[in-house]
Amino acid sequence: MTKIAKPPKRQIILEEAAKLFKDKGYGGTSMRDIAGQVGMEAASMYNHIKSKDEILDSICFRISDVYIAHLREVEELPLSFGEKVRVLIRLHIQLMVEDGPAVSVANHDWKYLPNARLTEFTTARRQYEKGFAALIAEGIAAGEFQAVNPTVALFTILSAVRWVELWFQPGRSLSAQELEDHIITMLLKGLEQR
Amino acid sequence: MTKIAKPPKRQIILEEAAKLFKDKGYGGTSMRDIAGQVGMEAASMYNHIKSKDEILDSICFRISDVYIAHLREVEELPLSFGEKVRVLIRLHIQLMVEDGPAVSVANHDWKYLPNARLTEFTTARRQYEKGFAALIAEGIAAGEFQAVNPTVALFTILSAVRWVELWFQPGRSLSAQELEDHIITMLLKGLEQR
Repeated sequence: MTKIAKPPKRQIILEEAAKLFKDKGYGGTSMRDIAGQVGMEAASMYNHIKSKDEILDSICFRISDVYIAHLREVEELPLSFGEKVRVLIRLHIQLMVEDGPAVSVANHDWKYLPNARLTEFTTARRQYEKGFAALIAEGIAAGEFQAVNPTVALFTILSAVRWVELWFQPGRSLSAQELEDHIITMLLKGLEQR
Repeated sequence: MTKIAKPPKRQIILEEAAKLFKDKGYGGTSMRDIAGQVGMEAASMYNHIKSKDEILDSICFRISDVYIAHLREVEELPLSFGEKVRVLIRLHIQLMVEDGPAVSVANHDWKYLPNARLTEFTTARRQYEKGFAALIAEGIAAGEFQAVNPTVALFTILSAVRWVELWFQPGRSLSAQELEDHIITMLLKGLEQR
């Protein structure tokens, strides 16, 4: 008989903690709540993870690492700027759909990171935003995009994909795939018929 | 000598309260804070306004009334659907720029309204969203807009304009007019060149 490998305990703790932080807030969640959710004694949970700070840190930096790794990958791909922006928009929506609680924590609770890590996190976020805005600016320079302000274009995109967090629930009439397609149509082609 | 009419006291109280709610949160602001900001004794402020609840109510419903009145007006105007949507987007951005603290309170602090008024407020908001989505659906039916899901189109628009709250500050390199133009280009024409 083969055994199906269970995710390691640490990963389960991080996943359940993200759900609790999302539902009850970071401040409103205790290590005891997390242990209860995972079904462990608090004392034995400390073998896997030291503190709530460590949990928050792992969640926030895992998400920001995913974004930055994808951006670096997309920058190197032999694609048009429109395709590159499409790939990044799809990544945002897919991460939200598949990893919702962690994305939500990285979006909202990063401000509770201890000081040094807070600076590192906001630097990483700025680096991502700068790289994404640069792709837009290059697309404009190449004549592929409209002559919009790259910052306005970037934040229109980031706001639109962030809203998915509030709205998407599995079982809604629209699938994640359709949601991606319609948001991409709005942002890349615009509401008006060509 | 002519006297320049000063805004009535009640209006000054509402404006200063909105700024305090925005900066310190609704829960974090006391009637005493508001009186201090306006430069009145708390006791004499009660001649103009009864409670913090009344202030919140006045701010939230003034803003939602403005949105609904404009929607009703736009619905009757002899314009294309594209023009109608442009008028509504401009309204959102202008309100944010000119009446920022009140818009922020109506966006975030409405949840502290007492029960009966809370229901009235969320009903008004749903009515606005429904009317705006209907304009989009009619524009699609008329062949003027892309065949996107009207709800996705609506919330892409509303998210994009709401972000202005976090970003726009007088003195930024982009004027309010330019911001409007670029957001409208993104949402109506899309990032990609036609």
